[in-house]
Amino acid sequence: MSVIEDIDPVMAAAAAAAPAAGAATPATRAGWLDAVAKALDACADELVGIADRETRLGGARLSGELVRTTNQLRFFGRIAVEGSYLEVCIDHADPAAVPPRPDLRRMLRPLGPVAVFAASNFPFAFSVAGGDTASALAVGCPVVVKAHPGHPELSRRVAGIMAAALADAGAPDGVFGMVEGFESGPALVTHPTTSAVAFTGSTAGGRALFDLAVGRPDPIPFHGELGSINPVVVLSAADAARGGELADGLAASMLSGVGQFCTKPGVVFVPRRSKVESSIRVTGPLPTMLTPAIQAAFERGIADLISTPGVEVICGDPGGPVVLAADDVAVIRHPALLRTEVFGPVTLLVRYSGEGLSEALRLLEGSLTATVHAEPSDPVEAVSAQLEPLVGRLLFDGWPTGVAVAWSQHHGGPWPASTSQFTSVGATAVRRFLRPVVYQSAPDALLPPALREHNPWGIPRRVDGRIDLPPRMAG
Amino acid sequence: MSVIEDIDPVMAAAAAAAPAAGAATPATRAGWLDAVAKALDACADELVGIADRETRLGGARLSGELVRTTNQLRFFGRIAVEGSYLEVCIDHADPAAVPPRPDLRRMLRPLGPVAVFAASNFPFAFSVAGGDTASALAVGCPVVVKAHPGHPELSRRVAGIMAAALADAGAPDGVFGMVEGFESGPALVTHPTTSAVAFTGSTAGGRALFDLAVGRPDPIPFHGELGSINPVVVLSAADAARGGELADGLAASMLSGVGQFCTKPGVVFVPRRSKVESSIRVTGPLPTMLTPAIQAAFERGIADLISTPGVEVICGDPGGPVVLAADDVAVIRHPALLRTEVFGPVTLLVRYSGEGLSEALRLLEGSLTATVHAEPSDPVEAVSAQLEPLVGRLLFDGWPTGVAVAWSQHHGGPWPASTSQFTSVGATAVRRFLRPVVYQSAPDALLPPALREHNPWGIPRRVDGRIDLPPRMAG
Repeated sequence: MSVIEDIDPVMAAAAAAAPAAGAATPATRAGWLDAVAKALDACADELVGIADRETRLGGARLSGELVRTTNQLRFFGRIAVEGSYLEVCIDHADPAAVPPRPDLRRMLRPLGPVAVFAASNFPFAFSVAGGDTASALAVGCPVVVKAHPGHPELSRRVAGIMAAALADAGAPDGVFGMVEGFESGPALVTHPTTSAVAFTGSTAGGRALFDLAVGRPDPIPFHGELGSINPVVVLSAADAARGGELADGLAASMLSGVGQFCTKPGVVFVPRRSKVESSIRVTGPLPTMLTPAIQAAFERGIADLISTPGVEVICGDPGGPVVLAADDVAVIRHPALLRTEVFGPVTLLVRYSGEGLSEALRLLEGSLTATVHAEPSDPVEAVSAQLEPLVGRLLFDGWPTGVAVAWSQHHGGPWPASTSQFTSVGATAVRRFLRPVVYQSAPDALLPPALREHNPWGIPRRVDGRIDLPPRMAG
Repeated sequence: MSVIEDIDPVMAAAAAAAPAAGAATPATRAGWLDAVAKALDACADELVGIADRETRLGGARLSGELVRTTNQLRFFGRIAVEGSYLEVCIDHADPAAVPPRPDLRRMLRPLGPVAVFAASNFPFAFSVAGGDTASALAVGCPVVVKAHPGHPELSRRVAGIMAAALADAGAPDGVFGMVEGFESGPALVTHPTTSAVAFTGSTAGGRALFDLAVGRPDPIPFHGELGSINPVVVLSAADAARGGELADGLAASMLSGVGQFCTKPGVVFVPRRSKVESSIRVTGPLPTMLTPAIQAAFERGIADLISTPGVEVICGDPGGPVVLAADDVAVIRHPALLRTEVFGPVTLLVRYSGEGLSEALRLLEGSLTATVHAEPSDPVEAVSAQLEPLVGRLLFDGWPTGVAVAWSQHHGGPWPASTSQFTSVGATAVRRFLRPVVYQSAPDALLPPALREHNPWGIPRRVDGRIDLPPRMAG
């Protein structure tokens, strides 16, 4: 039996569930997500135990991540019910226009079954019941998750709890499924039933799947969050004023989650002879990483960095958490230093002076985030103007790890940070799984409820060009 | 000199213009578009004369199209000034949240230089100064147009008028450029400076360029509007009640613009022994088509259709405007009949009975539009439910040709109708050329104006989850 045949029953069930999932009201779908959240919360101790055995991320971190995950499920339910995500827009007929304009009513509709690739580093929040799954289900798309091999038992248990909770809540059979095994990944992306892909992982793996998605006879959207360097710039007055504190903040950010965050600060630009460099301390043996493959890649990455001329070890151990440094001239000569993500607890300080900072920044590729630490006397405006085109999130005087789930969040950025103009975290993550449809001159009874004249769902709409808020939202 | 070198100066100028174009206020950019519109209107007689010599579309049609085009330039300026397109979303810091949430402010920013591929069939509205150009400039993206070889003199004249009007209006040098020649197309798509592509044309040509865009080391968005069959379904009570009138409407729609519209109804499902079939009349010799290549493709397309078993000529001449017909069983046996767009004045009636309609509809691929003609006694709900997943616009009792420029318009659809989830006509066309950026914990003075606390542009924003309308829009 080929892998395609292997996943066929799951995909057929997803396809069969799509019409009912798309026709369910946002309130109904929010109910499904709430039910899943409640069921996962009820099994928190068991789930955190399995997760810790499989990932070694620790009970405190994993408990927090599970809370974040179930809150995220409820969050996307609220986004669906609020209704702005439908982007409803109504233009009444204008017989006086030249040519006469018919009645046009636009809204977003679910794309259909979505393939979700779970990540290793957030076994709850970016995995089986994570943000991709929640945002797709919230807007009526069935989901088939490709489980990550780094936490198989947890994946199966979460999937079992989800499937039961969805069934109890009355969701259509097949609205959620899961497949495992390396070969099921390409099979999912190329399966005729799949209408979009959400992926979080490495640049190499993501690119290979992206190429399959866009190489299909019918290309489909591939929303990948791939590699990110997350440059940080410490300007000189900030270094002088609080370099010690910044060193502590940097160490905490690069070490958190054993450096296994997509927003880990990978390159930090500091003035020559900076307080950050002289103050930073990281010690200790390497904690167990997520998988042996990730640990091997970390070791190879460190070896590559250290073998580059001009790179030296500042503190820590090349076999464990480690801070490296190089002068701006060295990284300008070897720009791969600024472009190669090494997943794990390592960061590279780049010592700049004069034009070296601006020249080095020009060599950066796209990232999820960039950060500036500045005092009022620093040239922060010029530096942030140089960083903004490169990133999806620009931080001031903070650290990039930690991605709040909020209306305003954006977790994405120019290539290779992501493969589309969308986000995988925050309210607008739902937009990845929707497509516009316009109804022209449709009888009111044939319109989807969101488009009907009397606005039965009470959602915000644009009518004849003006934003029309329902009474509960106005004033 | 290679083609890449040939286009290098234009691309370098576009890259140089990008920061100033992106930093200009929406009102300033609307001023540029208004200036272009005014300058084109002032040369209307001259432009329509050139266009008619090159396209043979006729003075009346071309005059109307120029008015539509200059109105569209002004429309996108108004969309920019209205400000919703920026999708501004502000979440104030919440120190009480667990973990504490920083101040997050999201907006859309221009992607950078956009390559626009002009179409043959709308020498004004989908060409040099057409909707793609207008929507990109409106949001601050420089534009480089690949001129269509079907109307070279017109392209150069419009480009000259545009460049002069933009310069007079104070737009940055290089914000608009044009290139010509077949080889400049791939060169534009693969040029490192290009950040997105907008294309209107054939499925084969669009797919080739799409493959180049997604095959780049840094893939870029390719917004292509490709082929479309635009199925029409005439249900039996509608045929009985007004089949003669529908036949006239169909003839007018399929013949308008010599059938050279992307929304031409290419397949029309009619009951067996329909009044539509017995009433339809098209006559006369083939008017001059846009280019000899288009005419040759039309002739090949007709020959392919006619040589398919079961296809017969109903009226007209295989060498000119022509209506063909086949039974449902024939198209079910030869589904290419339902999937091959023949650009020009031809349509295929598909005679259905029983389950034949539903079976044949299942064989359709994505289209820009689908249309249902029904009386209250017809099973319109089931048929429209089957058509909706296939299209971007679903019409009731109308004809798909004619695409109003409006807030609610959507001109796109599932593959092969388009290559992305976006539209090339209507207000949301601007979304193709934007990407989100979040500012985290930024000092107010460092924020772009749209994100500053006191809302200096007076635009609609979402603040702490609630839609916040400026006074001029409220109530």
